[in-house]
Order: sequence, then C-alpha cells, then structure tokens
Amino acid sequence: MTSLKIPMPLPVGATIGILGDGQLGRMLSQSAARLGFKVAIYGPDPASPAAEVSSLSFVGDYDDQAALARFAAVCDVISFEFENIPVSCLAYLKSLGAHIFPNPEALGVTQDRIAEKQFARSLGIETVEFAEINTASDLDKAIITIGLPALLKTRREGYDGKGQAWVKTPEDAALAFSALGDKPAILEAKADFVREISVIAARGQDGDIRVYPVGENHHRDGILSTTVAPAKVTQDQQAKAVSIGRQILDALDYVGVLAVELFVMNEGGLWLNEIAPRVHNTGHWTQDGCLCDQFEQHIRAICGWPLGDTYAHTKIEMTNLLGEAVLEAQILAGEPKARLYIYGKGAPKPGRKMGHVNRVMG
Amino acid sequence: MTSLKIPMPLPVGATIGILGDGQLGRMLSQSAARLGFKVAIYGPDPASPAAEVSSLSFVGDYDDQAALARFAAVCDVISFEFENIPVSCLAYLKSLGAHIFPNPEALGVTQDRIAEKQFARSLGIETVEFAEINTASDLDKAIITIGLPALLKTRREGYDGKGQAWVKTPEDAALAFSALGDKPAILEAKADFVREISVIAARGQDGDIRVYPVGENHHRDGILSTTVAPAKVTQDQQAKAVSIGRQILDALDYVGVLAVELFVMNEGGLWLNEIAPRVHNTGHWTQDGCLCDQFEQHIRAICGWPLGDTYAHTKIEMTNLLGEAVLEAQILAGEPKARLYIYGKGAPKPGRKMGHVNRVMG
Repeated sequence: MTSLKIPMPLPVGATIGILGDGQLGRMLSQSAARLGFKVAIYGPDPASPAAEVSSLSFVGDYDDQAALARFAAVCDVISFEFENIPVSCLAYLKSLGAHIFPNPEALGVTQDRIAEKQFARSLGIETVEFAEINTASDLDKAIITIGLPALLKTRREGYDGKGQAWVKTPEDAALAFSALGDKPAILEAKADFVREISVIAARGQDGDIRVYPVGENHHRDGILSTTVAPAKVTQDQQAKAVSIGRQILDALDYVGVLAVELFVMNEGGLWLNEIAPRVHNTGHWTQDGCLCDQFEQHIRAICGWPLGDTYAHTKIEMTNLLGEAVLEAQILAGEPKARLYIYGKGAPKPGRKMGHVNRVMG
Repeated sequence: MTSLKIPMPLPVGATIGILGDGQLGRMLSQSAARLGFKVAIYGPDPASPAAEVSSLSFVGDYDDQAALARFAAVCDVISFEFENIPVSCLAYLKSLGAHIFPNPEALGVTQDRIAEKQFARSLGIETVEFAEINTASDLDKAIITIGLPALLKTRREGYDGKGQAWVKTPEDAALAFSALGDKPAILEAKADFVREISVIAARGQDGDIRVYPVGENHHRDGILSTTVAPAKVTQDQQAKAVSIGRQILDALDYVGVLAVELFVMNEGGLWLNEIAPRVHNTGHWTQDGCLCDQFEQHIRAICGWPLGDTYAHTKIEMTNLLGEAVLEAQILAGEPKARLYIYGKGAPKPGRKMGHVNRVMG
C-alpha cells in the first residue's frame, strides 16, 4: 500500500485487510485464501475465529492508530466484516492512503437508523413511519403520531435484538427509553408484515451488479434462526427486491456485498427493514446454494475481479447453531444432506452464534 | 495428547496435526476449520500454503525430533498430506503417544512400488508384470521377461513423472538406470490401457467405507492435467472400482481417504496403477461435485466423525493450473460455471501446481 492509485484488479498473492475478527471475517478470509489472496485480520482478539485461519493478524482496538498503521502498511485493500467500525477509524486509514471498500460514507448512512430510513425514502423505498427520539418528551410526542405498539431502538449499534424495546402502552415509554440507556433513539411503527425476506446484492468496481435470489428469514428471540432460499415470492416481488438492491448499491456508489432486509407487507409490497453494509447471516445459504457465495463475491468486488454468478442451483435451509446447539455438530454431520460451518469460538454461551448448518432441501 | 486411549470422536475445538505443508495440507486445513477444529501444520517452510491458513505452524525437517515433539504435544490426532514422510518420523511420533491416522504401516506399503504391487496381487487385484531392479544386470535380465518397451521407476519416491524413464531398446537400459541414480528400482511392463481412472475412497474408525464415483484422468508430460467425474464407465467397472477400494482399505486397516489409480484395460478390466495413501489431486473434483468433499471426508475419518455422503450431485471437470496458468485466475473467474482454488505459492515455475479450477459440466 504505497500508492493512492488503486492497483486493480488485485493480482493473486495480494493482501486483503479485514477489520473485524468474527465468523464473517473468518469466512471472508477462507474465500479470499481460496482465490489465492493473503489475508490480514484486524481486531481486538488475538485468538479470534478470523485470525485463526488467516496469514496475518493485528490485535488492537479500533482507535489504536499505531496498530492500525501497521495493519494498513501490509494491506493492498481493506474491507470490514461488521458495521459498527467507527467512521473515525476508517477516516484514519484513508488518511494513510488505504484503499477501503465499501466506501466509508456508505457505512455512515447505515450506522444511523434514522439516516438509513431517510436515505431509503429518498430513493422511493417504503419504510415504516418513524420518529427521532432524543429525550423522554420526544418519545411521549412521537407515540401520538406513530401509534402503539411501536418499537424503540437505539439510533446506533444494536444487533440480534439488542438495543431495542417494544412500547405497548404510553406508560411503557419512560421505562423503555431508560432501558436503552437514555441514548438517541428511533421510534418505529409496528410493521404490518407477513414475512421477512432479505436480498444479498453485490456491486463491482466497474458498477456491475449481481443480486442473489431472496431468502426468507425466521427469527427466534430477536436472533435469526433460519433462512430458506430461494424463497417462495412472486416474480414481481423478486424483481422488486432486485430493484431495491440495485438502487441502494448505485446510490451509495457501493463496492462489495450488502444485505437488505425487507418486510413483505400484507398487501404484497416490500418495505425496507434495514441495510447491512457487509456479508450477512441471511446470505450464508449461498455457500451451498450457489457456485459463487456471498463471501467470494465480496472478495471479488473489493479486489476488482469480475463478479460471480448468483444463480441458485440448489434450495437451501440455513439454520444457525446458537449456544450449545454447536455441541451436536457430530450428530448433524451424520445427516447426508447437511453441510456444517463451525466458527471456532470458545464457550457456547446462550444465543451466541457458534456455527450454522446448510441443509439441501427436497 | 496425554493419553494412549484415543478420545474419539474428537470434539469441536480439538487440534488436528498435519505433516506436510503444501496445497493438500492447505485444503485439509480449511475443511478442518470449517468443522470447528484447530489445525497445526508441520513442514519445512514457515510461509507455506498450508501454514498460511492454519492456526498453528511448526517448522522443521521430518527428522527434527525436538520440533516433532513440540508439534505432537499440541495435537489430538495427526495425519499427513504426502506419502514420502519417513516412516521413522511417524514411528517417533507414535513413541510419544501420538494418534496417527492412517496407520504408518499403510504408508510403508505404498511407499515401496514393489511392496505395493505385491500387496495388490495378494488381494487378487491385477497389475502389470514387474521386476525388482537393484543392479544394471538385474535390468538386462528383466528386459527379457518383461519385454520392451517398459517403464523403469525408482522403487521409492518420485511423483508427477519424476523418477521414471522409458526403456525402449536394450541399449536404453544402462542409461535409464543411471539417469535414475542407480537407485533400487522397478521395471514395469507397458500397460495396454485405454484410459486411466481413479477412485477416491474413505474408511472411518468404525470400519464404515464410502467410495466416490470414479474420475477419468488425463496427463500431460507426466503431470495430471484434468479429471472428469463422474467418469463414463460401465456399471460393472464402477462396481469393480468400488470393490478394489474396499479391499485395499480393509486390508490396510486404513482410516482416512486414499486414492487408487487404475488402468482401464483394452478388454475392459481394471488394473492397479498405484495407491496414494492420502487425499489426491484426482479427487479435487469432489469439492464441487459432492456435498462432502475428499478433504472434509478425511478429517471426518481421522476424527472419528461419521463419514459424509459421496453422491455426486454435479459433473465436474477439474483442470490443474500449472506454472503461469495461474496468472489467468482473473480471466477464469469470469467464467460463470468455474470455481477457483489457488494455493498461495510463490513463483509460478513451469509444471508447478499453482491451483486448479473446477468447471460445472453440461
């Protein structure tokens, strides 16, 4: 990384830096290695799922400029595996001349639930009604315009159902706001949806876009439990999902893979739930449903390689292995149509994503 | 690794040791990681294709007992990725209490081309006529019984066409023997075969056996060029190949994956060419043809897990990327039905296996 001119496409043997050291970084790293790239992982944990399968590992916090500089010095391109990387971290890397994909501005939009919904609406993509909440009194007012029940979420961060609370009666309001730590928040109207689907889409450095068939998601206790893909949706809905993916990718001048979670509404329309600017749990089915999965696709995009085919040759049910479910790995391995992905994490705490299994359907 | 009792099946998080640090070790390591195992690589090269994707790497020669002891101390089970590991190395590891699969005796048989053919014949598996050659005068005599042309090979080692020479006339004999370094050798009659196929077979610790459909191999300059699988063979030939695989696995009390290269003779019979006691280049097609590929299958076997399904859901043509062919990786990535595997090696020397591509056929 010595020049501001991006040497694309990156040749085999180049080094890809990944900010974040969890299972998404692990699977990105394995795909990158399969294409002949070296991978450098940056994250707080020296024995992380991602570092364990990567040629280089840099341990540090996201504000540790000395460690970030050492990391950047070996990387030909840098990407990230989770959306809560501080934008200041990316700005610092950029100031060093690092080539970062997707661009940090896209991350900024999706880190803020209000900016995200405003962005979607600016593209004509529908969302639930929402209101910005900074004080308990904002919340009292918003309840009147949004109606109840409504969902209160922290404006930033939060995942797997963390950082959110239902407000069912006006009396819940103050408690919900303080439960979320009196932080800037968003109040969202309850979506009258029948299903949740997600669309995994990729955009290359040349602007080429590829979109996978949509998957249908089922959550349990706020955590993704299964994705079935390709999902049973109408041709119109698939086309609409593709169009939403394209609009978002183009508007953000995005390079890489992103996931868009959508509500299928009662009347058949698709509304935006949220955008994840990265490979996503609801795209794990592509590992066994498609010849080029979301991880390889992301690596291709950020390296300036041609994007891969998104045709689904096989219908897959992806099931997360949460907590102690991972202890049944050997039993699952006995199923002839199951393929296992275990993340190499330590203790199987309840609700912790320890692995997943893709089952060939039908 | 503290007990002589084998703690099988190994739990997720256990450490698998692999002797050998090339591309086969790399792909074994990636499959092991996907199942949640940690991998320790032992080999001479600190920046090897296998070490680069593994959590632990031990650098040393195969007779470096101090380094081997450090390696063994972290491994719950040990296997190997190439057949020329000195048996003394495995004996030393065993003396330390290491659990080694497949068993070193199987390696001993396949390291010696004469013992290998004698072993096959003892099972009723046909081979070409052959003679043991220790001196130039042995060779002169053998030419008379074996006939010409015949193939002279070193008795041990040799791969990808190295360590062999054709003897076409009696006058070639002395030159061929000295070209091979006057080493113990084997003279093999020319096989009157129409095709070469190979069968990849696995045996678990419980004796369960799974055999993949056979693949047809094509070589160029003595190096494997392509494998197409499942190959067009008669049902009888597939059944015979499976039966040969089973016989060999059972007779060697083998645990893990092995490859048997077979000649399809003019009259339709199958004769043994050679046995490789490891995952094999002619089995790379399973990565995209089967849900459980040869690498995962080997890891399952050595860890005492149930063996995976060997059904071929897709017909694949595997092509090796030799030398500078790897520089076309990005072009190959543009083919919608191709999946790339690049080994992360340094210089693309002529004939060096740098990667392979699996193409979905039809």
